[in-house]
Amino acid sequence: MGRVFNFSAGPATLPEPVLEIAQKELLDFKGTGMSVMEISHRSAAFTEVIEKAEADLRSLMNIPDNYKVLFLQGGASSQFAMVPFNLFSSRKKADYINTGQWSKKAIAEGKRYGDVHVVASSDDKMFNYIPEITRDMFDPEADYVHITSNNTIYGTVYPELPDTGDVPLVADMSSNILGQVYDVSKFGVIYAGAQKNVGPAGMAIVIVREDLIGHALEGTPVMFNYEIHANAGSRYNTPPCFAIYMAGKVFEWLLDLGGVSAMEEVNREKASWLYNFLDDSKIFNSTVKGEYRSIMNVPFILPSEELNAKFIKEATEAGLSTLKGHRTVGGMRASIYNAMPPEGVKKLVEFMKKFEVDNS
Amino acid sequence: MGRVFNFSAGPATLPEPVLEIAQKELLDFKGTGMSVMEISHRSAAFTEVIEKAEADLRSLMNIPDNYKVLFLQGGASSQFAMVPFNLFSSRKKADYINTGQWSKKAIAEGKRYGDVHVVASSDDKMFNYIPEITRDMFDPEADYVHITSNNTIYGTVYPELPDTGDVPLVADMSSNILGQVYDVSKFGVIYAGAQKNVGPAGMAIVIVREDLIGHALEGTPVMFNYEIHANAGSRYNTPPCFAIYMAGKVFEWLLDLGGVSAMEEVNREKASWLYNFLDDSKIFNSTVKGEYRSIMNVPFILPSEELNAKFIKEATEAGLSTLKGHRTVGGMRASIYNAMPPEGVKKLVEFMKKFEVDNS
Repeated sequence: MGRVFNFSAGPATLPEPVLEIAQKELLDFKGTGMSVMEISHRSAAFTEVIEKAEADLRSLMNIPDNYKVLFLQGGASSQFAMVPFNLFSSRKKADYINTGQWSKKAIAEGKRYGDVHVVASSDDKMFNYIPEITRDMFDPEADYVHITSNNTIYGTVYPELPDTGDVPLVADMSSNILGQVYDVSKFGVIYAGAQKNVGPAGMAIVIVREDLIGHALEGTPVMFNYEIHANAGSRYNTPPCFAIYMAGKVFEWLLDLGGVSAMEEVNREKASWLYNFLDDSKIFNSTVKGEYRSIMNVPFILPSEELNAKFIKEATEAGLSTLKGHRTVGGMRASIYNAMPPEGVKKLVEFMKKFEVDNS
Repeated sequence: MGRVFNFSAGPATLPEPVLEIAQKELLDFKGTGMSVMEISHRSAAFTEVIEKAEADLRSLMNIPDNYKVLFLQGGASSQFAMVPFNLFSSRKKADYINTGQWSKKAIAEGKRYGDVHVVASSDDKMFNYIPEITRDMFDPEADYVHITSNNTIYGTVYPELPDTGDVPLVADMSSNILGQVYDVSKFGVIYAGAQKNVGPAGMAIVIVREDLIGHALEGTPVMFNYEIHANAGSRYNTPPCFAIYMAGKVFEWLLDLGGVSAMEEVNREKASWLYNFLDDSKIFNSTVKGEYRSIMNVPFILPSEELNAKFIKEATEAGLSTLKGHRTVGGMRASIYNAMPPEGVKKLVEFMKKFEVDNS
């Protein structure tokens, strides 16, 4: 079959031009006579790959010079421990905001290492909103405040960043990094698993302010210590070379398209087609209202399980793939990351319109 | 340029047929209309990939049923901490054998978590041999004994496994897993970074006896706990899907060629061509003697730095790539893992012969 439009929440669709380049040079990377998977991570050829990837990411996100960029293994799940290991002072205090399943996992792991307070939560309404947050809710003595900027499962996003004063803000940005513009200088740490909006699974990006490096708790595993990786330029040990190469190609593709602000504009437009249709529809319903709506993940439901199942089946047959929602929300979810072309969202909305006519 | 013969120690050459399959299906994995990098790690298609990879590895290594197979991130370097985190009892005692740089790193990390004894070392002779080991050297109260089965940098291999009695034997097998036959039932844990003899970087294989799972130290990060990964079939979080897919293709390729015993025979023959030539040569010298010689990594030197540099330069021009030795040993190193075709080693020996004639 030809390529489908793939609405997977992650691992997610990748830009087709990036896959085509990777395919073309899979057995011979830039005339080396070797695959990029077969060259030493310390070779000149791979040094160029990783250094260009970092430079391009810095350019895309306008990352200030006093931040280190790390390409690590272990996904966001490893960061749930690495953040407390690296950011806890002797006080070992942190504030977390609970906006969904990934927040909960970060909280659970944080609690194993220190005094973690959940200062706000949206669990009373199945996480379909972002709680209101004011600066006085935070402990000024906390070592950091942790948020999940975009909630993949529930389709919510922080309409604005919480004001944490002098306490470093840490964000799990796995599902909207590079999908919308953020001011990196507002964060102590940004981390993100690659497999949604960056590249293939098996890599995490960590962007960390330099003053937060170098104070890891005693007993922090070498591989969980930001300082070790920062000092080694993400090559303390063999890094996930192919994932870094692919991410680098995605960064180049994004730069060619005008960078993150241009992409955010496209993403907002793509999302608006879906939300506008959902708001007008008599049978489809959006599960998130107003300003909390993610422009990356759009969950929606039909009035019955039968219709949900019918929709998913018929959409799949029409080349609109992986639309099943997460089991905790049910229904459908369209993940429309950077690599989802506008045509894919247009085709989905057209399909939904026709489905509504046929099933009303 | 065409494909070269790539003697890199790791990331290392991959079987060309595997790269060709990966290239062919890079944009459309088995008619899904998606790349294997773009499908959910929980999808039916990827479930088949990971389950077949595990089944094939079990078949290749004849792994007993009371062992779990894990595909993890973080490389062997993460295992340096994961082994003590998971295997230490309240005694926190372990014996290590020091046979090179990777042993030293494992020892250093182990010492941070417990009472680690180095019972034998070959550091007196730049690790060019494996120390003699007898059972009475080990503490019968130790939680485990740790070895590095094959030493990539120095080109040494244990001629036989140490007898540790009832104490579980743990082996870092990064550079010779699947290159020669081992009886898995003799080990408590086998671990290996993938990027030498298995697949691309970004994955580690861990084979662990079931009774050693479930006793992790308090404070073990979730992502460092064997039990978590074993219970989740290596999918507690998003695994390194593409690396697992590639490793699976390598396993299929190995099975097609007759499995590990057939491959070991080929590897012994490939290595013998090199060692026989080195032993007969008047200008090339092997740095390892006798029974400790690795069949995976063959370091050798010429009488001067000038000749070493000349050899590497001319070999590279002749399509014999990445032969520079590790800085601690100097000279050259030919890594001749499973994926190095016999023709590559033949061509290298022919080239060495001609170099000797031209430079004597």
